Amino acid sequence: MDLTTITGPSFLKKLNRQQLEELAQDIRDFLIEKCSKTGGHIGPNLGVVELTIALHRAFNSPFDKILWDVGHQAYVHKILTGRAAQFDTLRQYKGLSGFPKRAESIHDEWETGHSSTSLSAAMGMAIARDIKKENHYIVPIIGDGALTGGMALEALNHIGHEKRRMIVILNDNEMSIAPNVGALHNILGRLRTAKEYSKAKEELESMMKRIPVVGGKLAQAADRVKDSLKYLVVSGVFFEEMGFKYLGPIDGHDFDALEKTLEYAKKVDDRPVLVHVVTKKGKGYKPAEEDKIGTWHGTGPYKIETGAFIQNKAKGPSWSSLVSETVRKLMKEDQRIVAITPAMPVGSKMEGIQKDFPDRFFDVGIAEQHAATMAAGLATQNMKPFLAIYSTFLQRAYDQVLHDIARQKLNVFIGIDRAGLVGADGDTHQGVFDIAFLRHIPNVVIMMPKDENEGQHMVKTAIDYNEGPIALRYPRGNGLGVPLDEELHTIPIGTWEVLREGNDAAILTFGTTIPMAMEAAEELSKRNIHVKVVNARFIKPLDEEMLHEIMGRNIPILTIEEGVLKGGFGSAILEFASDNQYHHIKIDRIGIPDRFVDHGSVDLLLEELHITKDETIARIESLVKNKALGKKTV
Amino acid sequence: MDLTTITGPSFLKKLNRQQLEELAQDIRDFLIEKCSKTGGHIGPNLGVVELTIALHRAFNSPFDKILWDVGHQAYVHKILTGRAAQFDTLRQYKGLSGFPKRAESIHDEWETGHSSTSLSAAMGMAIARDIKKENHYIVPIIGDGALTGGMALEALNHIGHEKRRMIVILNDNEMSIAPNVGALHNILGRLRTAKEYSKAKEELESMMKRIPVVGGKLAQAADRVKDSLKYLVVSGVFFEEMGFKYLGPIDGHDFDALEKTLEYAKKVDDRPVLVHVVTKKGKGYKPAEEDKIGTWHGTGPYKIETGAFIQNKAKGPSWSSLVSETVRKLMKEDQRIVAITPAMPVGSKMEGIQKDFPDRFFDVGIAEQHAATMAAGLATQNMKPFLAIYSTFLQRAYDQVLHDIARQKLNVFIGIDRAGLVGADGDTHQGVFDIAFLRHIPNVVIMMPKDENEGQHMVKTAIDYNEGPIALRYPRGNGLGVPLDEELHTIPIGTWEVLREGNDAAILTFGTTIPMAMEAAEELSKRNIHVKVVNARFIKPLDEEMLHEIMGRNIPILTIEEGVLKGGFGSAILEFASDNQYHHIKIDRIGIPDRFVDHGSVDLLLEELHITKDETIARIESLVKNKALGKKTV
Repeated sequence: MDLTTITGPSFLKKLNRQQLEELAQDIRDFLIEKCSKTGGHIGPNLGVVELTIALHRAFNSPFDKILWDVGHQAYVHKILTGRAAQFDTLRQYKGLSGFPKRAESIHDEWETGHSSTSLSAAMGMAIARDIKKENHYIVPIIGDGALTGGMALEALNHIGHEKRRMIVILNDNEMSIAPNVGALHNILGRLRTAKEYSKAKEELESMMKRIPVVGGKLAQAADRVKDSLKYLVVSGVFFEEMGFKYLGPIDGHDFDALEKTLEYAKKVDDRPVLVHVVTKKGKGYKPAEEDKIGTWHGTGPYKIETGAFIQNKAKGPSWSSLVSETVRKLMKEDQRIVAITPAMPVGSKMEGIQKDFPDRFFDVGIAEQHAATMAAGLATQNMKPFLAIYSTFLQRAYDQVLHDIARQKLNVFIGIDRAGLVGADGDTHQGVFDIAFLRHIPNVVIMMPKDENEGQHMVKTAIDYNEGPIALRYPRGNGLGVPLDEELHTIPIGTWEVLREGNDAAILTFGTTIPMAMEAAEELSKRNIHVKVVNARFIKPLDEEMLHEIMGRNIPILTIEEGVLKGGFGSAILEFASDNQYHHIKIDRIGIPDRFVDHGSVDLLLEELHITKDETIARIESLVKNKALGKKTV
Repeated sequence: MDLTTITGPSFLKKLNRQQLEELAQDIRDFLIEKCSKTGGHIGPNLGVVELTIALHRAFNSPFDKILWDVGHQAYVHKILTGRAAQFDTLRQYKGLSGFPKRAESIHDEWETGHSSTSLSAAMGMAIARDIKKENHYIVPIIGDGALTGGMALEALNHIGHEKRRMIVILNDNEMSIAPNVGALHNILGRLRTAKEYSKAKEELESMMKRIPVVGGKLAQAADRVKDSLKYLVVSGVFFEEMGFKYLGPIDGHDFDALEKTLEYAKKVDDRPVLVHVVTKKGKGYKPAEEDKIGTWHGTGPYKIETGAFIQNKAKGPSWSSLVSETVRKLMKEDQRIVAITPAMPVGSKMEGIQKDFPDRFFDVGIAEQHAATMAAGLATQNMKPFLAIYSTFLQRAYDQVLHDIARQKLNVFIGIDRAGLVGADGDTHQGVFDIAFLRHIPNVVIMMPKDENEGQHMVKTAIDYNEGPIALRYPRGNGLGVPLDEELHTIPIGTWEVLREGNDAAILTFGTTIPMAMEAAEELSKRNIHVKVVNARFIKPLDEEMLHEIMGRNIPILTIEEGVLKGGFGSAILEFASDNQYHHIKIDRIGIPDRFVDHGSVDLLLEELHITKDETIARIESLVKNKALGKKTV
């Protein structure tokens, strides 16, 4: 069918099995085709085609509340709620978001991007429903990875205790379960089907005998105890004990099983239900189905026939790769270094580290808090942990950085990946707050390199720094393609670099905005305004010597940053001027105003935010020429 | 014995059972006496006397690593590691800290204050030990409450998966287990004793029969499924499935049981061990033992004989009580209001709300992240959640406030309790970062009242505000004792109040520092310097109209805040001046410099930090008189 004719999910209820299968195929073809052009989270969405259709048949959105955890798997939901026609603009500027958005549709009840929030939100909605004496269903859909995030476990604890009605869909993605620990999964999976109950009971009893007793004979038999919470979670025992009714596991691509189970779940009225649905990521598109490491989780454009990615020609290595590979190099000589990632080994390009140093590499799953404090624990023992974490996800570990790492002044090297605007993922993922939330934490060093050569020296600097935490910010995407020095060296903490001299004004900036500042200075020089451009590579501590030198000359200063203005780098410069009684200096700031920034290409976003060469030129000209007071018109 | 003669824990190994009992009694007498004068966490420490002695006999600190989760229960540990003589200074300025401190002793391996960090830290230490091929024990001690915090669960998941050697002590405080859900606890507790194994096996089988089967007959029998993670955790099944060896539960006041179990635990070399120790809070001091609601968890000074607290004469109601009671009043008329606390119903004085509105009050346990996002979920359904949370613990929910509440612009009322310096609890608990970490989050309103009358009107303001999140900061301790208006009214968002007129300079401040600023202005007026004093009760948004008026007059400005200077309120004023091209105005700031602030009375800390009347006078005089440029000498 023509998916763009869909205006809402109610038509689904009239479809027969044959029509549902055809619709599923149409949706798959549509997604594969659209994402081949725009890129997107194709793998997760191909995995939930039947599940999403079944949910919208079983429930009445928006009367019933459907909540997508993480949210990148909501494309099918978007199609079924009347947004197919907008898929050409997916994740593009002013186009369809890659995540649920309340402003987009009344069917998007809850916005996400970060993981593990849906259960807490659903609990809030359930309380609201019960207080208002309403009677709708609340249906969070959460993946097996997201479920083991600490926040989701906190929510489970509370939901199970309160026993409010709620139907949690556990979207258990088969490919993410390691095959070596599936025993309990198998035993308890079979337990869930009535016809095999007796057999399963025997197996369960035999399993129970293996529980060790202090000093008893049975202790030795316990060595097949299962590995991780993920499998305990998947097993069902966990949920039953928590106060849920557990249903499953069922095949998430089988319409009949889904329908039968969801209808059964709707009848349970004395406690929350968990429906364990097993799906296959990438289902129906061979290159994505065969993916074993997560390449097809989220992609850029690709060729449909071959599954070959259409690569942008990048000048330099990816920033993630540059940093992780430099760490890997240093790990050879420095036994103190331990690398940690919260579930982003591929994104942060740590495969090389994992391969060469399996004993010093730790993927702790979606657990940013644990990752940060584990790093602190390592540092107390004179190890040098390298914690690679996306800027936006470091928000989850704010207290751990403050209370555990910085307060104890521990030598943790935080690699802040995806710092600055990230583009297509939008407001939930922009890495624009980290300067503002780290800068006020005592003992923290924050730096950002102008290019990948300086970046590799900063890695060395961070590894060799032993006076507390040190953070290295690096953007999403690729470097400039500059030559890399063979020898690594450290950069003195708190020292900036003059990139261009000038006596009329000074621009202080760092990282991605440096090339733009240099171009602006060049153009200004043609207008006879000579601007000093400084690579303010240490955001904290500031280069106070250089600041005294610049401010002592009483020239106006413009700061530029790809981060929020409130409490950001520019504010640090204002604070320095005030603290040192340079009250007369004109200081102006370019950066991100006090609002969230939606999705779109980074270039278009920078334009929208006025972080541009033209704006830089205009601000400098105004600072230099306009001595009169008055309000800015910007 | 004279406890002040103890220099380290090694003497413990030579003591016999009789001597151990005597030592335990001496320690109890000592703690009861010392805390009666200084105040402190007497209840938790009386509960771990035998446990702490047993740990220091079984292990060799500091070779073996003993980590106290939360850390307020480390007094006995401090006595046994040679710090008894300092107990007269407990929690006082420059005195003994109430928490573990690395600078205090080589036996304090890990500093805490916030809950649920010990397992992650222990995991880091275990990895370090194994990489270095060392062979010591690592022993985190964690309470049953702290264990259900999301971060601790993330850590359990990782520890169980990795199977590194570690002995986790679960300090299960009997009085915190609600009696109505003890069935599983009893069944599985008995399972742990070999002699009752057969009987327990029968019980377990019968329990297993209650696991429901989809559509099967057994589903109906499942109605005794247990309530919450806490009891699953306590049961042992959870830990066994997670990959731990579970030992217990044992009596935490029985030296023999402790010794036997710890020695057994030391022999387990193929996986982590969890020793489940049941202790009684307040053990050995009747008033504390009989406490049912947590009054004796942490106290001020008290009379030993009667257990009567020695009250300071407070002028006004406690701030927590003022805010919570005003909310309670409004809950009568406004059905939208739901009150939430993460485990602080007593501290945040919410007993009245709990009693009057049991269906609209939620204590979610130590789960700040869940609390914040659950509030967001409520707000999506047009409810008005009031989330009362200590400033220092709000740090744990930074991402939830940003990503879930503020980004979706949801109407959540955040009551920031204990905002500003908190005194005796020290650096882990000072509420001095919240302005800096909230101010840069778009859509957030932040306010702080000058007195409790304005405070109650701000509660009304927050409840009636429907354009996004609104935070009301209020300090630890009591109000000024001003009369309270009968009628509540709202205060226009972003409006300040002039408390005193003056043409020579302006002081912008809010909350606790207002009286000091008024006194300084009074004194300055006698020196013929006339200072305008503004109650800047909205920290965000600023009163831009008033700022234009003040800055338009070109008088110097001094900001004063009991919060960090970097990114704080003063920085907001600098930003406003820069953004509006008031480049020539002299702005100076008083606040907390870039370091952590230790424990001590708030008055002494303010003195140390130069947040004083004298400093205010000196800064104003300098701003007004000294027109010459130069560096400050402060």
